[in-house]
Amino acid sequence: MHPYRSHTCGALRLEDAGKTVRLSGWIHRKRDHGQLLFVDLRDNYGLTQCVIDIDNPGFKLLDGTRLESVITVTGRVVARTAETINDKLPTGHVEVKVDEIVVQSVADPLPLQVNSDQDAGEDIRLRYRFLDLRRTKMHRNIHLRSNVIASARRRMIEAGFTEFQTPILTSSSPEGARDFLVPARNHPGKFYALPQAPQQFKQLLMVAGFDRYFQIAPCFRDEDSRADRSPGEFYQLDFEMSYVTQDDVFAAIEPVIHGIFTEFRDFTGTAKTVSPYPFPRVPYAESMLKYGNDKPDLRNPLVITDVSAVFRRDDVEFKAFRGVLDKGGVVRCVKAPAVGDKPRSFFDKLNDWARGLGAPGLGYILFENGAGKGPIAKFVPEAAQVVLRELTGAVDGDAVFFVCDLEGPAAKLAGQARTRIGEELDLIEKDAFRFCWIVDFPMYEKDEETGKIDFSHNPFSMPQGGLEALTSMNPLDIKAFQYDIVCNGIELSSGAIRNHKPEIMYKAFEIAGYTAEDLETRFGGMLSAFKLGAPPHGGSAPGIDRIVMLLADEPNIREVIVFPLNQRAEDLLMQAPNAVDAARLKELSIKLDLPKPKITTEAKEG
Amino acid sequence: MHPYRSHTCGALRLEDAGKTVRLSGWIHRKRDHGQLLFVDLRDNYGLTQCVIDIDNPGFKLLDGTRLESVITVTGRVVARTAETINDKLPTGHVEVKVDEIVVQSVADPLPLQVNSDQDAGEDIRLRYRFLDLRRTKMHRNIHLRSNVIASARRRMIEAGFTEFQTPILTSSSPEGARDFLVPARNHPGKFYALPQAPQQFKQLLMVAGFDRYFQIAPCFRDEDSRADRSPGEFYQLDFEMSYVTQDDVFAAIEPVIHGIFTEFRDFTGTAKTVSPYPFPRVPYAESMLKYGNDKPDLRNPLVITDVSAVFRRDDVEFKAFRGVLDKGGVVRCVKAPAVGDKPRSFFDKLNDWARGLGAPGLGYILFENGAGKGPIAKFVPEAAQVVLRELTGAVDGDAVFFVCDLEGPAAKLAGQARTRIGEELDLIEKDAFRFCWIVDFPMYEKDEETGKIDFSHNPFSMPQGGLEALTSMNPLDIKAFQYDIVCNGIELSSGAIRNHKPEIMYKAFEIAGYTAEDLETRFGGMLSAFKLGAPPHGGSAPGIDRIVMLLADEPNIREVIVFPLNQRAEDLLMQAPNAVDAARLKELSIKLDLPKPKITTEAKEG
Repeated sequence: MHPYRSHTCGALRLEDAGKTVRLSGWIHRKRDHGQLLFVDLRDNYGLTQCVIDIDNPGFKLLDGTRLESVITVTGRVVARTAETINDKLPTGHVEVKVDEIVVQSVADPLPLQVNSDQDAGEDIRLRYRFLDLRRTKMHRNIHLRSNVIASARRRMIEAGFTEFQTPILTSSSPEGARDFLVPARNHPGKFYALPQAPQQFKQLLMVAGFDRYFQIAPCFRDEDSRADRSPGEFYQLDFEMSYVTQDDVFAAIEPVIHGIFTEFRDFTGTAKTVSPYPFPRVPYAESMLKYGNDKPDLRNPLVITDVSAVFRRDDVEFKAFRGVLDKGGVVRCVKAPAVGDKPRSFFDKLNDWARGLGAPGLGYILFENGAGKGPIAKFVPEAAQVVLRELTGAVDGDAVFFVCDLEGPAAKLAGQARTRIGEELDLIEKDAFRFCWIVDFPMYEKDEETGKIDFSHNPFSMPQGGLEALTSMNPLDIKAFQYDIVCNGIELSSGAIRNHKPEIMYKAFEIAGYTAEDLETRFGGMLSAFKLGAPPHGGSAPGIDRIVMLLADEPNIREVIVFPLNQRAEDLLMQAPNAVDAARLKELSIKLDLPKPKITTEAKEG
Repeated sequence: MHPYRSHTCGALRLEDAGKTVRLSGWIHRKRDHGQLLFVDLRDNYGLTQCVIDIDNPGFKLLDGTRLESVITVTGRVVARTAETINDKLPTGHVEVKVDEIVVQSVADPLPLQVNSDQDAGEDIRLRYRFLDLRRTKMHRNIHLRSNVIASARRRMIEAGFTEFQTPILTSSSPEGARDFLVPARNHPGKFYALPQAPQQFKQLLMVAGFDRYFQIAPCFRDEDSRADRSPGEFYQLDFEMSYVTQDDVFAAIEPVIHGIFTEFRDFTGTAKTVSPYPFPRVPYAESMLKYGNDKPDLRNPLVITDVSAVFRRDDVEFKAFRGVLDKGGVVRCVKAPAVGDKPRSFFDKLNDWARGLGAPGLGYILFENGAGKGPIAKFVPEAAQVVLRELTGAVDGDAVFFVCDLEGPAAKLAGQARTRIGEELDLIEKDAFRFCWIVDFPMYEKDEETGKIDFSHNPFSMPQGGLEALTSMNPLDIKAFQYDIVCNGIELSSGAIRNHKPEIMYKAFEIAGYTAEDLETRFGGMLSAFKLGAPPHGGSAPGIDRIVMLLADEPNIREVIVFPLNQRAEDLLMQAPNAVDAARLKELSIKLDLPKPKITTEAKEG
């Protein structure tokens, strides 16, 4: 018999009764019944109940061996009696009567309990990640992540994509975040950078003629921690295609995304609905208007309406709004359906909530019996209310909540109000993954402070209308073939049809204030490639971590990464980062340049 | 019709004749026949012949467009006449009569020709890698690499392994080579290291209960360039398994390796034989004896025999050998079969070759008509010759070539002689992948200079015989559960059953001169894991790059990596490594510490 196991701990069934088997695993739980000691033995595949009799010489050994020790048991499979069957366990119809025990590895007292969900605190969890990962939830999450990635790969390959590994030791990338730097030993004074994304390489692969590239790509940004972004490294399903339009990119990736979400939609125990594809396409401007942002949660049925025209009417004399409108502001509103029976406190609470965000309040009109009520109603005569009802589709029992400000802040607050009201009224669709594309992003934006025009997203995107648009239009009116995919209010990725024409690229950079030399210095490699025969191409890069977070319903990215850095970007288990010998630094032609220590009073006195 | 293509350049067949199609691709070749201009249009999928008539307004445009420009053609598919059919091309039965041409991207004059195999020099090839990658050979090699990796993944998943991504920003690893370091911005004076291999993480995954891990793992070593190793990063098929013996590891990976090699064995055009599995297991000591090294090329049928006993006989008086034997040396020989008809120059050439390596020569005895001939024969009387023939199996017509030295150098030279003689006699099997496992590596070795005992390979390997062996045996006699897989004389990977028991680990390190504190400081994370319930486990990590090099029959690793660094560890295309602003370094709490510039006479005078 194999020295460690004839079966895994998830394998035994009623039909195995009578067999002599050997299992190895961790002691998950022990129950001492006096004459009998029950042990739940756990491995990656499941849990099997083992039982040892007090007469067995192994009884004492097992009794004295701590939870999470690793043991090998040999014994006979027996059917459980009817009253002891455990239907929740696949192995719950049998148990193993232990003849022989070997302790493979003794566990010290545990810093965190594996067989409980009790919170151990993040520091302990990460310092003893190998224990934390044995817990059911983490073990399942990490398997989910692996399965999602394997599914993505399978689907991409089936769709005709080929995976290539792009370099990890490379040069600074243009994404704008901080690079991690790596001193180059044989090139004193020079540094490699870890890629923020394989953006340039995937475009070069297209220029090299590879047609359909993908990669589960490690990406590196030296940014401070956020709940949805690990400090350090993260993974994206990076892909790029040649000879495609924007619609071709969507058509290629939608079945993959839809397939992945459908495959794992019941991970949390309730099967979720997944948007059928093609996913809705929402122009950026429409999204900003209707949802107040460019990553709308379409599970929320509420939409925002612009009602500036109503408050600009001569018969409407609401000075607070009029003053803002005259300064170029807007009035937006969110219709809350069927709130006629809500108590006054419902409206007051929303008003307080808006004040808490720094707004003057959240004025509203409630429509009842054909008439408007509420603090603003008296300023809006009936004829204007009719227009308001037409614009918003409000009927009796509905209320409209107003936001008035300059366009940016008004959109933002209206978006927040949309979410808040949706939640208050319990209108947010449950158990659904609702996807959309945001399209037609502006190519440029103006820095409000400096007035400078710069790229609003990726400088490598193709402007809609090409060179002609660049030379004839107001830059702020030019749209790009740039798009985001959004799920439940979370941006999964940005993407674009790229600018593959050097002449358009020079012009696009010129508008953003870069000279031809700037462009050539920063992106010389890619520019030289575009001058030697480049196909039209485009792609995107959905974030793997975010996909897994959505599927696992985990708000914290560290719950879906096997060995994450903590929020201070440290690996508490492996002790990274760490000090390095001076000799090593010398070899790399660098030395430390430490910030001056802050001298405390105590230190001064000491 | 799609703006870029209705078909790829590899799609059209005779049955498409009559269709109007649109193709996009690179101008691979042009042939001007006066009235007609022929263009071979190329994309990732193939080549299609297009032809345009002089009357077509696009004729001049196409005529003036350089090779490797990207164009879109629209036209009608027509069958070629019998005499113009090209059977070598899948599309060779048709051509496209072009109606319309759009130039998508104009190519400047080419720094290297894509449609030729002419060597352009490595610098040009890497600086214009995107062009180099369009060439048929490179394009195929890179696709091979992608396909090998996809095949490995598929096979590993089918074998019950799960892929996990281990961290890339981590701490120094124990592999012994130089780490790449990454300054940690928020931890002044501290550094991350890029992993030389995910060794500790994969072991931690086993301790975390994941049972069967694999990863196509990026690994990083700051080593100088070699033909078979890229400076910088390389990939391995890293895997680890719990509750296994050495034979279980072999049984798990053999079908994967065999499957990959079988799947791609005809990549070079001739289908190669692949060793059936189980692959031969060769103990390290036997390999050193029979093949002169620990990575034998089993395509060579020759083996080495130790014949020291013959030259120690009283009736053998060959002083040159006897002197070395008395100093603890050995005599080894390689039998060359059926060389009776070789001219004297054959033997002289081998002798000269050995002298060229610093040996005194390559003495031999040629057996003919029951008697020995050659320079050494006279010192070896017939009775001793009989023993020699028995030991080596030599028959009339065979010769045995002798090497005499201390064991290490003797083994090495005998191994080289084995290769050389095999090549001279054309005995090396062609078109075969011959695998074996080298097993039973010594746990420790003695540094010849310092006399210090150290680990000979991975310090984490389990010693055969466990704690008892460590406490009772001469360390140099202890073997480890450590193994290499070798193909055609190339080591694909090292692996081991790991030492998962802290008490054995403390002892093993003590023998190599490390204190408990040393161990705890260097490998504290893993040690703490082993004290909280660790399963027996083991694994290996075949090198992806080497597998692809074998399959593609490429001696240079840069031929199988899409964007390699050059031998000076530079990326000539993306300009890495590069200088960095002082402000960025300040933020990382480092500054440059450049070597003093060498002052030349000229500079002094200037």
